[in-house]
Amino acid sequence: MSKEDISTVGLGRNRIEALTDGIFATVMTVLVLSLSVPVISTVNLPSELAVDLESLLPNIVSYVISFIVIGVYWVGHHAVFHFVKRTNRPLIWLNILFLLCVGIIPFSTALIGKYPFQQITTTIYGANLIAAGLSLYALLWYSNSNNRLVDKQHDRQLVNLARRRILVGPLVYLVAIILSFIDTRISLIIYAITPIYYILPGKIDLHWSR
Amino acid sequence: MSKEDISTVGLGRNRIEALTDGIFATVMTVLVLSLSVPVISTVNLPSELAVDLESLLPNIVSYVISFIVIGVYWVGHHAVFHFVKRTNRPLIWLNILFLLCVGIIPFSTALIGKYPFQQITTTIYGANLIAAGLSLYALLWYSNSNNRLVDKQHDRQLVNLARRRILVGPLVYLVAIILSFIDTRISLIIYAITPIYYILPGKIDLHWSR
Amino acid sequence: MSKEDISTVGLGRNRIEALTDGIFATVMTVLVLSLSVPVISTVNLPSELAVDLESLLPNIVSYVISFIVIGVYWVGHHAVFHFVKRTNRPLIWLNILFLLCVGIIPFSTALIGKYPFQQITTTIYGANLIAAGLSLYALLWYSNSNNRLVDKQHDRQLVNLARRRILVGPLVYLVAIILSFIDTRISLIIYAITPIYYILPGKIDLHWSR
Amino acid sequence: MSKEDISTVGLGRNRIEALTDGIFATVMTVLVLSLSVPVISTVNLPSELAVDLESLLPNIVSYVISFIVIGVYWVGHHAVFHFVKRTNRPLIWLNILFLLCVGIIPFSTALIGKYPFQQITTTIYGANLIAAGLSLYALLWYSNSNNRLVDKQHDRQLVNLARRRILVGPLVYLVAIILSFIDTRISLIIYAITPIYYILPGKIDLHWSR
Repeated sequence: MSKEDISTVGLGRNRIEALTDGIFATVMTVLVLSLSVPVISTVNLPSELAVDLESLLPNIVSYVISFIVIGVYWVGHHAVFHFVKRTNRPLIWLNILFLLCVGIIPFSTALIGKYPFQQITTTIYGANLIAAGLSLYALLWYSNSNNRLVDKQHDRQLVNLARRRILVGPLVYLVAIILSFIDTRISLIIYAITPIYYILPGKIDLHWSR
Repeated sequence: MSKEDISTVGLGRNRIEALTDGIFATVMTVLVLSLSVPVISTVNLPSELAVDLESLLPNIVSYVISFIVIGVYWVGHHAVFHFVKRTNRPLIWLNILFLLCVGIIPFSTALIGKYPFQQITTTIYGANLIAAGLSLYALLWYSNSNNRLVDKQHDRQLVNLARRRILVGPLVYLVAIILSFIDTRISLIIYAITPIYYILPGKIDLHWSR
Repeated sequence: MSKEDISTVGLGRNRIEALTDGIFATVMTVLVLSLSVPVISTVNLPSELAVDLESLLPNIVSYVISFIVIGVYWVGHHAVFHFVKRTNRPLIWLNILFLLCVGIIPFSTALIGKYPFQQITTTIYGANLIAAGLSLYALLWYSNSNNRLVDKQHDRQLVNLARRRILVGPLVYLVAIILSFIDTRISLIIYAITPIYYILPGKIDLHWSR
Repeated sequence: MSKEDISTVGLGRNRIEALTDGIFATVMTVLVLSLSVPVISTVNLPSELAVDLESLLPNIVSYVISFIVIGVYWVGHHAVFHFVKRTNRPLIWLNILFLLCVGIIPFSTALIGKYPFQQITTTIYGANLIAAGLSLYALLWYSNSNNRLVDKQHDRQLVNLARRRILVGPLVYLVAIILSFIDTRISLIIYAITPIYYILPGKIDLHWSR
């Protein structure tokens, strides 16, 4: 067992990452189950099939957005765990809390895909993403405060950049929820474009490259 | 192949843990499928959607509880396998029995989520958790009795603490089943709070830290 | 890249085993989806719920049997790959053929669980297991004939024992299919007890232990 | 952390391959969910069951084809990543784009399985495979152009062969879509036989063996 694998309950960083990768892989795949094949009585009518498939469009859009959003959290999780050198009981349970929030995204995705312009589904979707983002933030904060589970000589400025970067999502999603009371389409546009911020390179990449 | 990987059928500890992590990851994700998106004929009525989503509340609560309970078993499994240095045929099949019990949790979760106050669903849920707990106990007992699959010099007191700790769950769940004949709500509360015992640090952590 | 990882298309033994473990983990979990929660209009009638749950019994039995059968194939696959030192294109595709057969087991399980006493479902289930067994046999045969992908000095007698052991399943399942024309209950009993042969230790274990 | 694991955001080649393998394993398993067990009111009529199962045949054929097609992409992905020595932000997101395309295959498979002779489902299926093929091509192109993420001394001719080989699929599928306007059966035959090109050994294997 390598030094990186030191843990208090036999669960090293590698094991936690294995469960995390497995859950992310399954969640990203389960998303597709929200796309249900339309059932049409008269198969001979291709026009009806076309109409039914068109009505699936919001589901396909929400599939794509959620797949990318979960990809953002996956990248974020690995960035957070890049620093973690030891594990302990609270870290494991904060991580399971994070996975619980990620694991419910297929439900809120199917919900907003079916009822895209309802204030309530827009709020649930945003609240789900906020919860995931905040629990990721908690993971970073907990492992780094007082150098609890990280090396002392690691780049503090990089951690501060990462903390701010993670918080952008929950803040923007909060704004989206508030705006959903005016017009849910504004919220949907915000949900669609926020991942771009995380996909594009940022100040943080300058630090990683060092 | 490292010394830790010695096995009688080509299946070392690492392989068994890979299957176990994979099943745990999938089971935790599949839980969410018990949350089905309500189908409403008149989408224009947000109030009806709100009512329907509210009726999903027991499902969401049971999702959260089961996700955490499965997390408890995952942590427990790794603690048990922390000691295992060799594998053999009975260990592999005890492990598959354990995974079989864990794999059925999404069904009993969906069941108790849909019919939360029925004596029968409360019993099935509790019986499922008891079966998972007892098979985990069997794994610990089998690998440790006569130092069958563990090192001789390992901490016996730690193993005894672990055995008692694992048995708490099945015992408490048995009480919950009995109390379900009086009032199922008592059982539900017991199911909800039992994981806290396993999440909080216990006497066992003092031993791990050494 | 270790010597064991030599491959002609960048796919070493480890990668193939990773996909295989992942598919096995998911297939074993997806089995549970054949257990659907009954929908009862009058929730106040616990008796009706009990009846509906009782009618799920064949599904639960088939879940348990299939979970164990898939466990048998998983153990078998690793025994087969224990010898494999090199990979090549035909091995990769024989392995994908094997996984294709394993991947369809949740469907034939759900089928036999819903219509347990029908000749046709009994035949489909048996044919599925035969296909999985024969493709596993093909994997062992292909990698070993002419020492194609194995070391020359490995135990030939062990391989012969393994080949015979793998063939027992398909042969017994063929008999079960034939007997299903007389009485499907005989076939079901055969499906239920065949895994025991693979779980119990056999002559082959004497060789492994060496 | 090995030299192969160098990355700019804490995500080395191994981590990306772990998520990829996990998603491929789950996608290949989730395919089977498109095979739904027929619900028959009068179970006593085996003939009706036989008819219903026969009507599942297109679904079973599309399950088999898609399983193999996804196997082709899995082999292709590992061939592409065989060269990759470093990772960076665009590579991670090109890979997630590729996984997004692969992850939607279970939906288009269920669609073409249910409505096999419709021009629209044939087109959607083909478009899905083209998108997956082109994103795989983008991964190979991006990592190799200007030796961006690969070693300088690696076999350029091999990469060129791989690029041409990957492009065959999208081109053939484009032809299949065009021909679907004449007769969808021609397209289905093309979808069924195209994987054979990738399964059979080609010029590229001569290079790998070196």
